[in-house]
Amino acid sequence: MEQVSGPDDLKKLTVGQLKVLAEEIRQFIVESVSRGGGHLASNLGVVELTLSLHYVFDFKSDKLLWDVGHQCYAHKIVTGRKEQFAHLRKADGISGFPDPSESIYDQFVVGHAGTAITTAIGIALGQDRLGRKDRVVAVVGDASIVNGVSFEGLNSLGLVKRQLLIVLNDNSMAIDATQGAVAKYFSKVRLSQTYEDLRKTTRSILEHMPVIGKSVEEAIERIKKSIRMALPASQMFESLNIPYFGPVDGHDVGSLIQLFKALSHLNHPAILHIYTKKGKGFVPAEKDGRRYHSTGPFKINGDVAGVDAERKSFTRMFGESLVKLAEKDERVIAITSAMCDGTGLGEFRRRFGDRFYDVGIAESAAVDIAAGLAKAGLKPVVAIYSTFLQRSFDQILQEVALQNLPVVFCLDRAGLVGSDGPTHHGLMDIGFLRMMPNMVLISPADGVELGGALEFALQHDGPVAIRYPKDVVPEPKYVRAASAKPFRLGESVFVKKHKNSVVAIVSYGSVLKEALEAARLLARDGIGADVVNARFAAPIDEKIVSLLAAGKCMITVEDHGVACGFGAAVMEVAAATLKRPLEGPISLVGVPRSLVKHDLRPRQLMKVGVNADKIAELAREMLRLAQSP
Amino acid sequence: MEQVSGPDDLKKLTVGQLKVLAEEIRQFIVESVSRGGGHLASNLGVVELTLSLHYVFDFKSDKLLWDVGHQCYAHKIVTGRKEQFAHLRKADGISGFPDPSESIYDQFVVGHAGTAITTAIGIALGQDRLGRKDRVVAVVGDASIVNGVSFEGLNSLGLVKRQLLIVLNDNSMAIDATQGAVAKYFSKVRLSQTYEDLRKTTRSILEHMPVIGKSVEEAIERIKKSIRMALPASQMFESLNIPYFGPVDGHDVGSLIQLFKALSHLNHPAILHIYTKKGKGFVPAEKDGRRYHSTGPFKINGDVAGVDAERKSFTRMFGESLVKLAEKDERVIAITSAMCDGTGLGEFRRRFGDRFYDVGIAESAAVDIAAGLAKAGLKPVVAIYSTFLQRSFDQILQEVALQNLPVVFCLDRAGLVGSDGPTHHGLMDIGFLRMMPNMVLISPADGVELGGALEFALQHDGPVAIRYPKDVVPEPKYVRAASAKPFRLGESVFVKKHKNSVVAIVSYGSVLKEALEAARLLARDGIGADVVNARFAAPIDEKIVSLLAAGKCMITVEDHGVACGFGAAVMEVAAATLKRPLEGPISLVGVPRSLVKHDLRPRQLMKVGVNADKIAELAREMLRLAQSP
Repeated sequence: MEQVSGPDDLKKLTVGQLKVLAEEIRQFIVESVSRGGGHLASNLGVVELTLSLHYVFDFKSDKLLWDVGHQCYAHKIVTGRKEQFAHLRKADGISGFPDPSESIYDQFVVGHAGTAITTAIGIALGQDRLGRKDRVVAVVGDASIVNGVSFEGLNSLGLVKRQLLIVLNDNSMAIDATQGAVAKYFSKVRLSQTYEDLRKTTRSILEHMPVIGKSVEEAIERIKKSIRMALPASQMFESLNIPYFGPVDGHDVGSLIQLFKALSHLNHPAILHIYTKKGKGFVPAEKDGRRYHSTGPFKINGDVAGVDAERKSFTRMFGESLVKLAEKDERVIAITSAMCDGTGLGEFRRRFGDRFYDVGIAESAAVDIAAGLAKAGLKPVVAIYSTFLQRSFDQILQEVALQNLPVVFCLDRAGLVGSDGPTHHGLMDIGFLRMMPNMVLISPADGVELGGALEFALQHDGPVAIRYPKDVVPEPKYVRAASAKPFRLGESVFVKKHKNSVVAIVSYGSVLKEALEAARLLARDGIGADVVNARFAAPIDEKIVSLLAAGKCMITVEDHGVACGFGAAVMEVAAATLKRPLEGPISLVGVPRSLVKHDLRPRQLMKVGVNADKIAELAREMLRLAQSP
Repeated sequence: MEQVSGPDDLKKLTVGQLKVLAEEIRQFIVESVSRGGGHLASNLGVVELTLSLHYVFDFKSDKLLWDVGHQCYAHKIVTGRKEQFAHLRKADGISGFPDPSESIYDQFVVGHAGTAITTAIGIALGQDRLGRKDRVVAVVGDASIVNGVSFEGLNSLGLVKRQLLIVLNDNSMAIDATQGAVAKYFSKVRLSQTYEDLRKTTRSILEHMPVIGKSVEEAIERIKKSIRMALPASQMFESLNIPYFGPVDGHDVGSLIQLFKALSHLNHPAILHIYTKKGKGFVPAEKDGRRYHSTGPFKINGDVAGVDAERKSFTRMFGESLVKLAEKDERVIAITSAMCDGTGLGEFRRRFGDRFYDVGIAESAAVDIAAGLAKAGLKPVVAIYSTFLQRSFDQILQEVALQNLPVVFCLDRAGLVGSDGPTHHGLMDIGFLRMMPNMVLISPADGVELGGALEFALQHDGPVAIRYPKDVVPEPKYVRAASAKPFRLGESVFVKKHKNSVVAIVSYGSVLKEALEAARLLARDGIGADVVNARFAAPIDEKIVSLLAAGKCMITVEDHGVACGFGAAVMEVAAATLKRPLEGPISLVGVPRSLVKHDLRPRQLMKVGVNADKIAELAREMLRLAQSP
């Protein structure tokens, strides 16, 4: 590994040396992730694949697209970034996802599933148009390929009349177990194959590979004839008219290299189906790929990953609250898209297996199924990360909001998310949801309120979206009697009222603790500040607007983009109700419209100014400006 | 037809009488649409299907879901709404799409493709949970089934362990010709089938249909054995483990009734594949289904539909401008999703066929392919209606905006759309796009500006979205010298400057004509008003904010939701730059967060207040309030 500083160095190695290198890289990844956390199991599975691809192709000019992108560690290691693994996902280090600003070997900043095939089609069409021969390779997992966007890509693959290789990396495991037809189909194929079958398939492909002048159809026919087993595996892709090869062993570097060499000469799209093992080479991750999909730091020599200290996260509070409410009301149903554990639904699934649906990475389907359930009279709760819920924008609008159906959306990871970076922040949900008719938006300030919000949402006769961050709930000192107050539609809570206040800090969600802290800082300077916990971003409590009309300096605080956010909603209501100059000034504290890089979440919040010190500073500045002529 | 006032009346008719009724309904639809416009070809194709479904099922309790929904006319006619066809899509009449507020026979307000399967799954799961036996039927066209959401639904169909029938209504024609793999597959199957084959398949299904106690797998095996042809058609669905029956003739009422009776007893999901003819029974529509997909009023006795008077629409101006720019720059590529003619790209396709891609109803794929093309160095222009573009929210954010790729989005039908109603308005695009980093938003005031905006966008090094309405371009009196001024990033244009003005009307897009008219009305009262054509919603010109700081009463005007719209953007910038009380008041004129029903577009605009009279009135009220103590 010492000798490999770039892909060109790989090409000098023998297959035997590549095998040794694969083991070294795996060990390096396990050690790096054990120290600083990251995605583990998926990265261990694609080491041989990565080495073989870089061995055969030249991705300085050829284009390599990783679907989702969280399996790019080996790729980063062999493309000159191994020194930076000590700072993986840290402020001064590299991202856990591909990023063209880091390396010419990366094409897109990605983090969401299903887009490699479609973007590869675009690149291939563009290459063709510009008369360039650079080859295009998209690596897609079996969990990503069921996403609607992937399917739309497979359906449009015929547009491409040149080389484009799709590697279907089948590790027979989605982030959570998927239950879809495609997963079952792959699993059936996999069970029918012995290791010897895979080897035979490899040999047959290499033997019958189309050479120039021969058609791929004939080659595939010959391959099929020589291997009894390939037929079922190819059926699905055949019906879509996509030349299919495989399945073959995805850990056999030597064979992969030969296969890629052979397939790189095709002058049209093709799929190579490979089997890999998630967590390969690290026993705990092989045993429990789900747990080691994305992990914090852990000890290598225990066979269980070190669990985070028992802090109550919003995620966990959500899971616990929902279980309690589901005990009382059997109409409550939970739906998620491949994020059962991530959204805290593990206990719900164990307790109420027949009231739980995981549709795989198919956010649109999750929302529409919820709409149907609500239509039938049930109370569906859709738990999807904020950043992934935007994939269902149209379904939320048409199938839920326009029909005013009582679907409850629980948006985990709303706001800045820390080390996953730009593709995973949830900074747009307030904006896109509050444009929709009938939609009620809530953000709880702490764990107690999360329970209250959920209870309110489940009895509200229309759609409700509840957002909360990837964070622990605030410390007890911030949990106030106010949190226990039942939720009433559009009613905010005055958490702190100051006699002779000149400032009003109105916060939405868990950032209440920053607002309270800012008020404390201002009080030290003798500045009185009210603190309001808005609870609702739609509808906006008119009491908030009246503070502004009363001439107080108002600061709205949210862990969301300033554009279209909670503060903007307050201003819109003020404009609509007042139609006259506001007596007081208003400033919106939130995340500016820019890319916030991977870092620790508290540091990200501080950098963008969603932070007690910055809020207090802003209040002082506003007071100065208001008093100056 | 006189005797049928509800579905129960149908059940009393003989097959022969149903055939006569089908012809009567077809004639009635042709006459109705010829008078008032609407969707024609798709509706003529499903008359027998509709009658057969209502004959066999009881949709007072059973659930019927029409995908897209524009093929619901026969359904509306037989469910008691035929009298209201004189007012179809008019303010006082019924909608052109299903609407539960009209009838218990309608389930969802729909208008976007691909959602019937997923919502049907939800309803079926809900029925099951509640122990109800009501049957669920989803009717999906061959153009809709390629949409990613449909596929996600097919993939999740296995969740349902009870009856759920999907009718695949294959009329071998999408809104525009689709080129995808699935379309080719269906077409191959169709070409292999004679009419006699279809009859044979029908007989075989009825003969071998599973009876209670026998498995459907066995039945399908027996059917397959008896008809040589069925195998290829079933391959695709078989790989997804979905029991498949067909193809059969979708115009043979007698057979359809028998088939539905047989299939309604299945205790698991199944697909029935039927062939219908778009435009069936009306020769011009049979010949040119695309032209008669959605049409204005026309003469029945000519074989060409009456073309609208030669008014230049924004759509047409877009098409012409793009052709001109494409002549000069061969890197310009156009992409659409099944809306070539609707978006005005017909001429572009004729001229530059190899630079044009239609991916079918797959908006996500369209955007990702554009991202890939831009990455490869081309200049893709994505033309999609505003309401459909929201289906690509996540792709626009991740694959375009986060990468800062130069993709140009052209959003036709932005704003209120008239007779298509709530599912088709484009009232959210400013909001969801302006949250994204790097995104530049433009709306031209007239046709001249549309050309200028497009020229600007194609040379801008980053993503640009241009929105314009489903409307004719403003009359010449509104086309001013100002329109010819080249676009510069973030620069607005002062169209009218008034000495001693107390009001500033800032308009975004084609509503400039209302702003100018309002200023004229105010001038008559001696009130001076500036009029600004903002051109950009992102970035916002700071000159606009300075008007507000100068104490003028400001009114922003847009054909978009007030929430998160252009006016809100102005306020956000004002808050960020001023941090002190505004000297002048501001009011935002736009569409409130509510359902705007089908009506004529000018009347919709008037009702919501995006209208010269209302703007002038609002200005007077604001001035009064500002002057009162």
